[in-house]
Amino acid sequence: MADIIDGRALAAEIRGEIREEAERFHEETGVRPGLATVLVGADPASDQYVRMKGKAADAASFHSRQITLPGDTPHEQLLGVVQGLNADPEIHGILVQLPLPEQIDEDAILEAVSPAKDVDGFHPVNVGRLAIGDDEVLAPCTPAGIVEMLVRSGHDPKGKHVVVVGRSNIVGKPLALLLLRKGRGGDATVTVAHSRTADLAAMTRDADIVVAAVGRPNTITREMVKEGVVVIDVGSNRIDDPSDERGYRWVGDVDYDGVSRVAAAITPVPGGVGPMTITMLLRNTLEAARRQVAGAGLAEGVVAS
Amino acid sequence: MADIIDGRALAAEIRGEIREEAERFHEETGVRPGLATVLVGADPASDQYVRMKGKAADAASFHSRQITLPGDTPHEQLLGVVQGLNADPEIHGILVQLPLPEQIDEDAILEAVSPAKDVDGFHPVNVGRLAIGDDEVLAPCTPAGIVEMLVRSGHDPKGKHVVVVGRSNIVGKPLALLLLRKGRGGDATVTVAHSRTADLAAMTRDADIVVAAVGRPNTITREMVKEGVVVIDVGSNRIDDPSDERGYRWVGDVDYDGVSRVAAAITPVPGGVGPMTITMLLRNTLEAARRQVAGAGLAEGVVAS
Repeated sequence: MADIIDGRALAAEIRGEIREEAERFHEETGVRPGLATVLVGADPASDQYVRMKGKAADAASFHSRQITLPGDTPHEQLLGVVQGLNADPEIHGILVQLPLPEQIDEDAILEAVSPAKDVDGFHPVNVGRLAIGDDEVLAPCTPAGIVEMLVRSGHDPKGKHVVVVGRSNIVGKPLALLLLRKGRGGDATVTVAHSRTADLAAMTRDADIVVAAVGRPNTITREMVKEGVVVIDVGSNRIDDPSDERGYRWVGDVDYDGVSRVAAAITPVPGGVGPMTITMLLRNTLEAARRQVAGAGLAEGVVAS
Repeated sequence: MADIIDGRALAAEIRGEIREEAERFHEETGVRPGLATVLVGADPASDQYVRMKGKAADAASFHSRQITLPGDTPHEQLLGVVQGLNADPEIHGILVQLPLPEQIDEDAILEAVSPAKDVDGFHPVNVGRLAIGDDEVLAPCTPAGIVEMLVRSGHDPKGKHVVVVGRSNIVGKPLALLLLRKGRGGDATVTVAHSRTADLAAMTRDADIVVAAVGRPNTITREMVKEGVVVIDVGSNRIDDPSDERGYRWVGDVDYDGVSRVAAAITPVPGGVGPMTITMLLRNTLEAARRQVAGAGLAEGVVAS
């Protein structure tokens, strides 16, 4: 049976480190890393994510601020809020919770966030820096969490063949770019497969590490992987289950029972990649605070130029 | 024997189309697409590249301007030249020839070029847009030329497994991002292999299309590819050859004689990818001119925001 890569335990370990570093940073500079979350409208799932992020920031001894705006907030007003946070010295990281209501131009809002405060890593300048291989960039949280899990669980991707299934902007493509960088957590041979891939099983069977980020249960089955593979399951799919008291349960993109019989290691769902994502948001915020306080502001230089 | 994918003929065909479009654009708007090339110092190879680009622009009925500065030009002065070109309505595309002398901060200069006029496609904002899958972006010229060659020679990468050997910012990584986009020239399954890849031959043998962009002769040999593969050779290596009257000749990264015996199609060196690169520079300049004249200026919106 496969080793279980315990995302909750790893996340707790890293959050402990971040809290210590944040406290040392506060002692040295008088500044607490500041994270602002912006929520427009009252979507219950978004509201819950934003609360979790705020709580995690508080637990890491950050300064956190939650801004909730009505669902009919005009685009210009939200833009004004973002610009205010860009200029606010107490805030080092800005997270605008997606999706945004339809009257808002989502791309324009994401691009309005200062690249230096873009702790989600979705600003085109930061995506570009990631693609170019800049190792100082604020990397998107889920891909960064996956790399961190691999390294800390003893499955360094260096020199390994990693097959990433899914080509989204949030996971697949930025993860491929992270894994291709030189240095820690990088230097992997990377294949990106997706819905147009002719023979997915042929690809995944060749992989030392499979990352499934598709959003469909049972995309990766036992026959599709080789003995000894390491499997990271990014999926989070809600399926009906009358035997569960809630009537549903969460499953990943991987047939866990089948694949865990042949894999060397596997992440569970829930309790795998999920807890790592918010952890990387905290790490990005701490890093952004350090740079802003040091006045390095590499990313701000781009805006000024 | 493999079909030869004739880069010179394809480039001539596309340049003819671009010239026609440029003339129609001029009739409709009174504007000629304008390309400025900036050369600092007197490196003979750079000088020759810049001349070739200027000549190609003239032949396509573009407005072209070549700015040559002394090798000891200070950083601030070059920055001023770039800013002047950014503001110049006659110029729609700016190409700063690399490498730049050591007193110049190369990254800062590339980032100073307006993303809307970045016809080389190297500005982080444009790289980011490319990674995000924006199909309106000005894409780097060599990768764009490779995709165009594949499509026009009847080897559409859609659904195919493309193994890109080399992870540079100029070819390998942007090419992978182009091939992963949805739509024309995209939808490929893409593997990026490089110097840290454990078993390169195992990767390339699995490929429907191999792109070699390493800069080392004989990186891809006959034993490393499957029967019927399509091979794009981006390498351009100068090797000694006493039998040649110049004492040297140019070879690619692929063992052409061996591989062409099993491949379905292959690009020669010279006369393969090379002529396509300048062609894509012209296409980017025409496209940039169209957008600037239409006032669409998508990329400029980023700078303004």
